[in-house]
Amino acid sequence: MKYGFGVDLGGTTVKIAWFDEAGTLLQKWEIPTDLSDRGKNILPDIARSILAFLGENNIPKGDVLGVGIGVPGPVDKDNVVNRCENLKWGVFDVAQAITDLTGFPAKAGNDATVAALGEYWKGGGAAYENMILVTLGTGVGGGIILGGKPVYGTTGAAGEIGHMVLKRGETLPCGCGKFGCAEQYCSATGIVRTAKEYLQTHNTDSVLSGSEKLTCKAVFDAAGNGDEAALKILEIVYDDLAMLVANLCNTLDPQIVLFGGGVSKAGNVLLEGVGKHLPKYIFHACAHAKLGLATLGNDAGAYGAFKLILDNL
Amino acid sequence: MKYGFGVDLGGTTVKIAWFDEAGTLLQKWEIPTDLSDRGKNILPDIARSILAFLGENNIPKGDVLGVGIGVPGPVDKDNVVNRCENLKWGVFDVAQAITDLTGFPAKAGNDATVAALGEYWKGGGAAYENMILVTLGTGVGGGIILGGKPVYGTTGAAGEIGHMVLKRGETLPCGCGKFGCAEQYCSATGIVRTAKEYLQTHNTDSVLSGSEKLTCKAVFDAAGNGDEAALKILEIVYDDLAMLVANLCNTLDPQIVLFGGGVSKAGNVLLEGVGKHLPKYIFHACAHAKLGLATLGNDAGAYGAFKLILDNL
Repeated sequence: MKYGFGVDLGGTTVKIAWFDEAGTLLQKWEIPTDLSDRGKNILPDIARSILAFLGENNIPKGDVLGVGIGVPGPVDKDNVVNRCENLKWGVFDVAQAITDLTGFPAKAGNDATVAALGEYWKGGGAAYENMILVTLGTGVGGGIILGGKPVYGTTGAAGEIGHMVLKRGETLPCGCGKFGCAEQYCSATGIVRTAKEYLQTHNTDSVLSGSEKLTCKAVFDAAGNGDEAALKILEIVYDDLAMLVANLCNTLDPQIVLFGGGVSKAGNVLLEGVGKHLPKYIFHACAHAKLGLATLGNDAGAYGAFKLILDNL
Repeated sequence: MKYGFGVDLGGTTVKIAWFDEAGTLLQKWEIPTDLSDRGKNILPDIARSILAFLGENNIPKGDVLGVGIGVPGPVDKDNVVNRCENLKWGVFDVAQAITDLTGFPAKAGNDATVAALGEYWKGGGAAYENMILVTLGTGVGGGIILGGKPVYGTTGAAGEIGHMVLKRGETLPCGCGKFGCAEQYCSATGIVRTAKEYLQTHNTDSVLSGSEKLTCKAVFDAAGNGDEAALKILEIVYDDLAMLVANLCNTLDPQIVLFGGGVSKAGNVLLEGVGKHLPKYIFHACAHAKLGLATLGNDAGAYGAFKLILDNL
């Protein structure tokens, strides 16, 4: 049996996982992401942690297939990261750097794309070779799998679906500087914004009205308890999400669209809600697409990162 | 030297072209599309025309690599057409049917996807392995090439970008039954509609105002002559097209987006117009994408159809 590492590099922590070649996650741990000195310590820290793990467990280097890594920025098909704002990285070959530090074969991809690959391999997208993962968290990200292979795009920026424009005429800017991006409505932050706008413009005695610090979870909880305003707010959110999902389907004709990220913890109500609005926007020939939930949670990135190695042996 | 056929099957005529394996179009002709009896004569007619051509030119069957065909409906990666309204076809393996009739290897694809493959091979998209063709004609269609390969989608409906929703709140239905599809604004018909709406709601002495039968070409011509209303109308059109193009780029991060179809005869003014509005909608990491024009005209489908054969040898 051979083994390998799947690494999910985030802005605050690095998740490292040790897999056997069948895809069983055998062990996982985290190290902090050192953002000092324009992130120059990050990969050496990962290499040191990986080599220490092998040493402590007396694992011969010959048993290691390689190190896959998901990076929070655009990474092209040749492992080149194309600037990564939150790590302060420039342009370089991430896989080559890991190989230089560890001696192992390596492969890198964008974190959301790699998470989609993980969900395709062992999660909610298993058995669907045409699959899109939509991650609804603080922001909105995405990863696209076609024919069982991740889509990287030219510079590694494929799947930036949070920045598809849903609404022209929006007056507030998105974090990216544009106006009307999906992220402004479909992220946890966007849902809270929609809720606040609804409550400000409707005279209602919602449990949400008095809340000091309105959260996305509070909106879903209130709706679950039958709060009318919360239910109306979620209809707006589902409608926005349905337009996003439909436009992806109309372009790529996938078998399934999976929701991941914090917002997807709402579960089946989210799928049902979006599903109800979908027929308005989806082209009939693409309407066979299923909606589903990501199932690997925070481990999706590590699974996908290791799968990059298996796919490139 | 080996040879092969590229067939572009349309609703009124079938274009048949004879290529050498280097991709030189040696000869082309057309036959009518027989829509009677639910289109059951179409493929036998094509087979008869192909076999007659070989006989008349004393070409041995052993010199023929195969027959590629573009079909005006969804065709999946296994050559299965998934209902084709305008030919009244059901669900069947088009390539197998052609092989049964001719004895040659065959391969089928959706016509817009196949045209994109043609433009990638020998046209405006040559050298761009990540490319999207947007055809602006009576309707709006599209074909997607990623990593030099056509994207078919699950049922062959990938690239139905004319049915991406651009505007919610639209009150007139699209031909597909939905509301607010790109086709309603970006097709030749859609541009005429935008022009009529503009003229009705603005008091202007445009040369277009008096026109009995307003055409898309008349709008571009008037704008070319400095007609203010026509220029304003085209800004609306360019803005709509820019949102469509940007959302495609934000999802797939292509190197180039090509415009084809009748509207693209407007040429560079179209590229400049859309390019001016693009920064509003395109994500910075995808903004490297070029805009270009398809160059193969009505032959794109035949080129792409024959390329299907070369790619599947």
